Amino acid sequence: MQPLPCLGEGNYFRSAEVSLGVVCLAPYDLEVERAVREVVALGAKKVMIQAPDGLKQYLGGLCESLEAAGVSPLLSTEPCYGGCDVADGAPVGADAIIHIGHFKFGGRPDPLPTVYITARHLGGDRDLPAKAARAMKARGFRMVGIVSNAQHIHLIGEFREALAAEGLEGVVDGETGGLVLGCRVGAATAVEGAVDALVFIGGGDFHALGVALACEKEVFIADPYRGEIRETVQMKRRALAKRWWLIAEAAKAKTFGVVIVTKPRQMDLATAERLSSDLRRRGKVCFLLAGSDVSWDRLVGFAFIDAFIVVGCPRIATDNQECFSKPVLNAGEALEVIKRL
Amino acid sequence: MQPLPCLGEGNYFRSAEVSLGVVCLAPYDLEVERAVREVVALGAKKVMIQAPDGLKQYLGGLCESLEAAGVSPLLSTEPCYGGCDVADGAPVGADAIIHIGHFKFGGRPDPLPTVYITARHLGGDRDLPAKAARAMKARGFRMVGIVSNAQHIHLIGEFREALAAEGLEGVVDGETGGLVLGCRVGAATAVEGAVDALVFIGGGDFHALGVALACEKEVFIADPYRGEIRETVQMKRRALAKRWWLIAEAAKAKTFGVVIVTKPRQMDLATAERLSSDLRRRGKVCFLLAGSDVSWDRLVGFAFIDAFIVVGCPRIATDNQECFSKPVLNAGEALEVIKRL
Repeated sequence: MQPLPCLGEGNYFRSAEVSLGVVCLAPYDLEVERAVREVVALGAKKVMIQAPDGLKQYLGGLCESLEAAGVSPLLSTEPCYGGCDVADGAPVGADAIIHIGHFKFGGRPDPLPTVYITARHLGGDRDLPAKAARAMKARGFRMVGIVSNAQHIHLIGEFREALAAEGLEGVVDGETGGLVLGCRVGAATAVEGAVDALVFIGGGDFHALGVALACEKEVFIADPYRGEIRETVQMKRRALAKRWWLIAEAAKAKTFGVVIVTKPRQMDLATAERLSSDLRRRGKVCFLLAGSDVSWDRLVGFAFIDAFIVVGCPRIATDNQECFSKPVLNAGEALEVIKRL
Repeated sequence: MQPLPCLGEGNYFRSAEVSLGVVCLAPYDLEVERAVREVVALGAKKVMIQAPDGLKQYLGGLCESLEAAGVSPLLSTEPCYGGCDVADGAPVGADAIIHIGHFKFGGRPDPLPTVYITARHLGGDRDLPAKAARAMKARGFRMVGIVSNAQHIHLIGEFREALAAEGLEGVVDGETGGLVLGCRVGAATAVEGAVDALVFIGGGDFHALGVALACEKEVFIADPYRGEIRETVQMKRRALAKRWWLIAEAAKAKTFGVVIVTKPRQMDLATAERLSSDLRRRGKVCFLLAGSDVSWDRLVGFAFIDAFIVVGCPRIATDNQECFSKPVLNAGEALEVIKRL
């Protein structure tokens, strides 16, 4: 899901001294100096570093810089999909966390003192804002909502200027600064009423699809990796058709498994139990399941269950259905199933 | 890794009432009555059930029996490879655990009150002990060591009798009762000096390979699922050749990743740190990693690491190498690498 970094263009950041043969040329700003400074200021002796799989390749230099500052680094091998997924390094003796790739999520306190590094993208197509502005103008839009993810949100100002240069207006939600997450697209829905269309700045389809599914206005992707502006109409149509079909299929199921994701910031026992009792009241057999990372190989063993509902990150269900051999829905979709029973 | 149960033969146990459409005909004794009785005696209101992936399909009936007794069941979706891997259900509100498929492992206290169900295999070839005895006699053996796993250890008595009927003697380690685990084969090595060959009773190659790798005497598999006696010579030769080749390859690596498995009963920080400092003293670059379940998709991101050492279950490295694209060794093998540096 992590886009491949477009090595070979842009002003890449050398994330650490090239030493001991571990070369780390990252097209993302890992803010090594700040990370080391803040970890040292915390008085940490052992720090756990966690990052999405696509960024793990760049962590060698950060480790060496930490060691040079007298701090022992410990690399988490676990997946890391969001700020909702902060490691607890205490069991392995860590006294601080460096969390890479996301902003802090929600109000709950971190399990350990945590330094957040958003990993700003440093490469990319410099002409992208102008391309986006021309494309929006060509489509006849005047007011354009702008949203982005943690790696590209620093580009929003440039996009606003480029739109203004074409006589268009870029609209950014004040509360979020335009930031969208896989599960939180309020930055888009808050401005949708005031705009003709929306532009998401970032790579891949993951975030843009989330925005498109939540908005009726058209959503475009301004992709700094590919240097292109592309539509989301087809993708949205396919995704919606698939989701509604799965909701209809799930309504035929006899037995349901409601999966509680146990990551602390995703865990929602109350919703799981409410869904379970609602399904039972409608004559369904319902089992409660619990686990940290949900994938098909974690569910396939439960042969006596016809359909699964994942209570946790809502994107687990929507973005992995091609891997699932039975309907797997998120909590919102489960409510649609219950309406049909 | 879990053998497919040979449905269609043997006196299978109906693990629970067939009710609500959830049919659970398990060829393993899930001891549903005892499990429910003990959980109720513990005063538990919510119990987490964990089982190896191959047994998850049989858990529907156990859930229903628990509910009928007023206890809420919660099925763990996580993998479960051994008694070294007992879930902590407390974060999801469980106050007891039912752990299926293994005996209690080691002396450390369980995180929650835990009921162990070994899941005795109920089907299988009734003529297997006699087949094994005839095969051992035909090979000219007189003293035969017998070992088994949790699912088949109850068959050891029958094997002893069958050997005696052929004029042979079955030898079983007194301390372990003949039980071997993937990582603990003392039941075999303790009797090896007193026997001509060893028989492992159980399916698959996993346990028998562990025994064969630790013993010089020949090891045979008496497989209740296939109803056959088979050798391990080829398998052992292939495995050993592969391991020594990987040890030689790893010795050429410049950068090592020492992976600390964070499952509480596998975690061994001291060994990880000792291996790391030994490698560094010999001029290698060494990173410490930590994670719960180790598979290639958890390691592949660390592109700057040439070889990995898994400190935790020693079988992760030996039994998954075909999935790993770089050398992945266990702690014992890492010592062989260090000898070569």
